[in-house]
Amino acid sequence: MSAGGEAACVWAAAQHDWLLDALRRFVAIPSVSVDPAYAADMRRGAAFLADHMALCGLEHVAIQATDGHPVVTADWLHAPGRPTVLIYGHYDVQPPDPLEKWHSPPFEPTVRDGRLYARGASDDKGPVMVALAALAAYLQAGALPVNVKLLIEGEEEMGSAHLDAFVAAHAGEFAADFVLSADGAMWRVDLPTVTVSARGLCALELTVSGAAKDLHSGRHGGAVANPLQAMSRLLASLHAPDGSVAVHGFYDRVGVPDQAERRAIGAIPFDPAAYLDSLGARDGAGEAGWTLLERNWLRPTLELNGVWGGYCGPGAKTVIPAEAHAKLSCRLVPDQDPANILGLVEAHLRRECPPGVSLSLARAEGTALPFRIAPEHPGLRLAMRVLEGLYGCPALPVRMGATIPIGAIFQRRLGLDTVFFSFATVDEDYHAPNEFFRLDRFRDGIGAWIKYLDLLGEEAASGGPS
Amino acid sequence: MSAGGEAACVWAAAQHDWLLDALRRFVAIPSVSVDPAYAADMRRGAAFLADHMALCGLEHVAIQATDGHPVVTADWLHAPGRPTVLIYGHYDVQPPDPLEKWHSPPFEPTVRDGRLYARGASDDKGPVMVALAALAAYLQAGALPVNVKLLIEGEEEMGSAHLDAFVAAHAGEFAADFVLSADGAMWRVDLPTVTVSARGLCALELTVSGAAKDLHSGRHGGAVANPLQAMSRLLASLHAPDGSVAVHGFYDRVGVPDQAERRAIGAIPFDPAAYLDSLGARDGAGEAGWTLLERNWLRPTLELNGVWGGYCGPGAKTVIPAEAHAKLSCRLVPDQDPANILGLVEAHLRRECPPGVSLSLARAEGTALPFRIAPEHPGLRLAMRVLEGLYGCPALPVRMGATIPIGAIFQRRLGLDTVFFSFATVDEDYHAPNEFFRLDRFRDGIGAWIKYLDLLGEEAASGGPS
Repeated sequence: MSAGGEAACVWAAAQHDWLLDALRRFVAIPSVSVDPAYAADMRRGAAFLADHMALCGLEHVAIQATDGHPVVTADWLHAPGRPTVLIYGHYDVQPPDPLEKWHSPPFEPTVRDGRLYARGASDDKGPVMVALAALAAYLQAGALPVNVKLLIEGEEEMGSAHLDAFVAAHAGEFAADFVLSADGAMWRVDLPTVTVSARGLCALELTVSGAAKDLHSGRHGGAVANPLQAMSRLLASLHAPDGSVAVHGFYDRVGVPDQAERRAIGAIPFDPAAYLDSLGARDGAGEAGWTLLERNWLRPTLELNGVWGGYCGPGAKTVIPAEAHAKLSCRLVPDQDPANILGLVEAHLRRECPPGVSLSLARAEGTALPFRIAPEHPGLRLAMRVLEGLYGCPALPVRMGATIPIGAIFQRRLGLDTVFFSFATVDEDYHAPNEFFRLDRFRDGIGAWIKYLDLLGEEAASGGPS
Repeated sequence: MSAGGEAACVWAAAQHDWLLDALRRFVAIPSVSVDPAYAADMRRGAAFLADHMALCGLEHVAIQATDGHPVVTADWLHAPGRPTVLIYGHYDVQPPDPLEKWHSPPFEPTVRDGRLYARGASDDKGPVMVALAALAAYLQAGALPVNVKLLIEGEEEMGSAHLDAFVAAHAGEFAADFVLSADGAMWRVDLPTVTVSARGLCALELTVSGAAKDLHSGRHGGAVANPLQAMSRLLASLHAPDGSVAVHGFYDRVGVPDQAERRAIGAIPFDPAAYLDSLGARDGAGEAGWTLLERNWLRPTLELNGVWGGYCGPGAKTVIPAEAHAKLSCRLVPDQDPANILGLVEAHLRRECPPGVSLSLARAEGTALPFRIAPEHPGLRLAMRVLEGLYGCPALPVRMGATIPIGAIFQRRLGLDTVFFSFATVDEDYHAPNEFFRLDRFRDGIGAWIKYLDLLGEEAASGGPS
């Protein structure tokens, strides 16, 4: 490690309590982007982040408007001849419900067993604060070995709805060599991994309407259509008995993996039974003909995310509700296109809608194309080298079932590849109650980001790959 | 009309405002029986009713405990040689949700266009107050022409869950000639009707469980079962494409109506298109091979009353929920048995439950057998005579799609037939937002009950049918 890198490590170790305290204050802000009820908290989240960036020593800190929630940007560009890295993350979080399942309140950060429990601790405030801690360590102890630009958005949990337009409009401002993302959790806690692909996303909301008002199921039952029954039938039609998606044309653009790729996935140390057990889930679900990892990494899905209608309170209420609702989303693989898939799903739903009810459809904001990066990308190779040094075993290139829309956005708008270098882990219950971030990973991550920036600067200085 | 009846009519006319005001105060009490959050209001509802009965001049007023909500009882037994009528009604109401669809708050009674809007105005507090007004009119103006006993329960909206045991334990106390029910709305506002049958009821709640916690649909989608998808498939399996119930054995005990019965129903003046239009509903639903009225009156149904699971808030949340829930109920016709039908439905659900999830089932309290009364029953004939006198056209005997469990309870425990004599009408949106009671029916009903009791006393005095 260079002298600058060592000084940064010393500073980070000395200031660890302060860095952790900043994370605690950050996750205490309920910056839920999808729910308008949290609009003021979103503004507080952005303001906290901007203040913290300035404290870290970054320059040109700005809260920039988009057509949705603002992005927070900054830079430090005083390393001439060295690479410029665009650092990405997000300050918005998922809704905290179901609230009653949290063991401590979602916005009252609580440490238990070496874990920080709070909504957003793992996705993505913890990893963002890892990156900022590494930058602060260099800037407070001296200077950064490379140039950095930062773009921390507030709509990742809404599918980065307005980021594409913002990046397109500010393309010159974000020119860089590649993107280093603080988002995109590692696959396993027992094995260092880097992400080489992620699935795309598109989503729909359905409303099935029957009578103009809720009806007594005795007085009118049998005479009129029940929207809940129509909805169940419609939703059931979306999958075939073998677990595949029954929407006509859904698989038309899905690339068929070659046998070498399937063999490589099969060779990864992975125990499906232990995985299912860790989730409290059972075997036997999913598309026939594919292994569990293949279904999660290589195959597209159509998932129901919410269904509701009628009486959901205690006891019985004999009602035929006026409406039934559902939310669904699809995870896409190369070369599926979100708009094309939404059109196919909509056509299926319209065709299969039972008689006696009407159907309305609304596309959710924020679609995302599938993402890929070449396994030999130098920024990715560097991440693997740092991880191997930290954990003492080779880092495994893995695919990701989840979606990070920014990969496709940065590719299309800036021509940049994205290297995911997050120290969150997928088992940390983000998008669920009791989200947590491992405090040893907070410490590991800060050291790893310091090392990564150090090596990136050294490689550039020595004329190596950047 | 006898002099006593005429005096009662004069008193009722003079006291109409006070009687209506008492109804307004009664419906302002949110006596929701199914939801434990309203337990204190249920006690207030029973206390109000008991106080009002005493004010009316009834004797032995008592709030009697059951294993659930209490019943309110009273009597007046000073007409020796005359019949004894057991008057039934209920003081509990349906839950008021969805609250946002009410034009005025459900427990702030509001008069608009000659209608009293409030939860419970039509079902059943208005009709109960009609009966009590007629009794008060006799007792305040002199004496009743017959003996009366009153049993007003607090669990009708829970399927009269504990009434059967209470009536069985107090059979001697409720000995009477027949039951006159203030519950059981008339079928149409434009045609006087009496009810000759009602469907039975049984209900179930289902929970489909997948993983032990909510999961990120990207990270885990495709790998594990989605309980919402399993629930949709399970619920869709309950009906065949022709709209019939697909549960094996469901129709085994259903009596086949003879052609004369179907012809009589076909001859009833009824316009299905106008009926559907009044509900804002479309044609094309329901069991094939039966007319709309036949489906509603003669055929059993299986209806979904509520379905919920996953994320139901604004925007998208890409979650695979741990659980999905549904409530369903069946309306039964002679000679279906609730316990038998629940067993068949449970067996169907267990057999059809998809792999990868587990299913748990809970039977709802309060099943009810189907109800019938002979069209020639003298108490029913008397009701038809009063209605013809009031409205100037013959009253039509009709069936009822809805359920009133007390018919079967009083038959089994007391050997008594039940005559339904309510002045509510089925279009009054009970079990829905904006429930109302027509104020002209409140006045009509009080006069009709006075007349009914007068004729019943006269027939007994003259040795006619009682």
